[in-house]
Amino acid sequence: MKKIEHIGIAVKDLDSSNHLFAQLFDKPHYKIEEVESEGVKTSFFECGPNKIELLQATNEDSPIAKFIEKKGEGIHHIAFAVDDIEAEIERLKLNGFRMIHDTPKKGADNKIIAFLHPKSTNGVLVELCQDSPD
Amino acid sequence: MKKIEHIGIAVKDLDSSNHLFAQLFDKPHYKIEEVESEGVKTSFFECGPNKIELLQATNEDSPIAKFIEKKGEGIHHIAFAVDDIEAEIERLKLNGFRMIHDTPKKGADNKIIAFLHPKSTNGVLVELCQDSPD
Repeated sequence: MKKIEHIGIAVKDLDSSNHLFAQLFDKPHYKIEEVESEGVKTSFFECGPNKIELLQATNEDSPIAKFIEKKGEGIHHIAFAVDDIEAEIERLKLNGFRMIHDTPKKGADNKIIAFLHPKSTNGVLVELCQDSPD
Repeated sequence: MKKIEHIGIAVKDLDSSNHLFAQLFDKPHYKIEEVESEGVKTSFFECGPNKIELLQATNEDSPIAKFIEKKGEGIHHIAFAVDDIEAEIERLKLNGFRMIHDTPKKGADNKIIAFLHPKSTNGVLVELCQDSPD
């Protein structure tokens, strides 16, 4: 794992949170992207080598809607940048980690991604992400 | 804010979590440090330009003990590196953010730190940290 690629933060209202985080970082988000398959609308802020991703649910069945219902707004996941996501998935499985995705899928921000199950990582939802080869 | 300096993760048992995160990152923690004033024992892992800090409570009144009691193990805070923590505190207060610490205090890993109140940051506990001038 090369670095923290981004931190995902679950928010109720993307517009007001974009305003809030722009004040926190002293600069605005640099893009908005909807990931239909996950039921989320996202915005991204740069912070040096890292990013902050705000996530708002676009429907009731979205994992973000369920997260906010259960835990409230806040940090949702940590994403780590990897060079070879398939090799990393294999390595982690051999070490006993449970994957939510055994094979990578398309994520936001032109990445291929896979999540680990938080039950195997002290309650932390961990995402692996690799730049999309396309 | 220059980068994510570290992510703090609340754990129940530092020894077993050190083992778990060493497998996750494929390398061991590089140091252990106790911060008596906060009632925590911490370990640090490197991840490129960023760090992961595991936090175990050393007494019942520790903020980490209270966090785990309320929310379970998991991500506790995000720390951002800043060059001038006092100027950053002033800027944030002028923008309406609530500080837990109006003046910086000594933290782990040779830093001076200040926390923002999560009520003003969408439920996210945000730490500012600057390399200690000493």
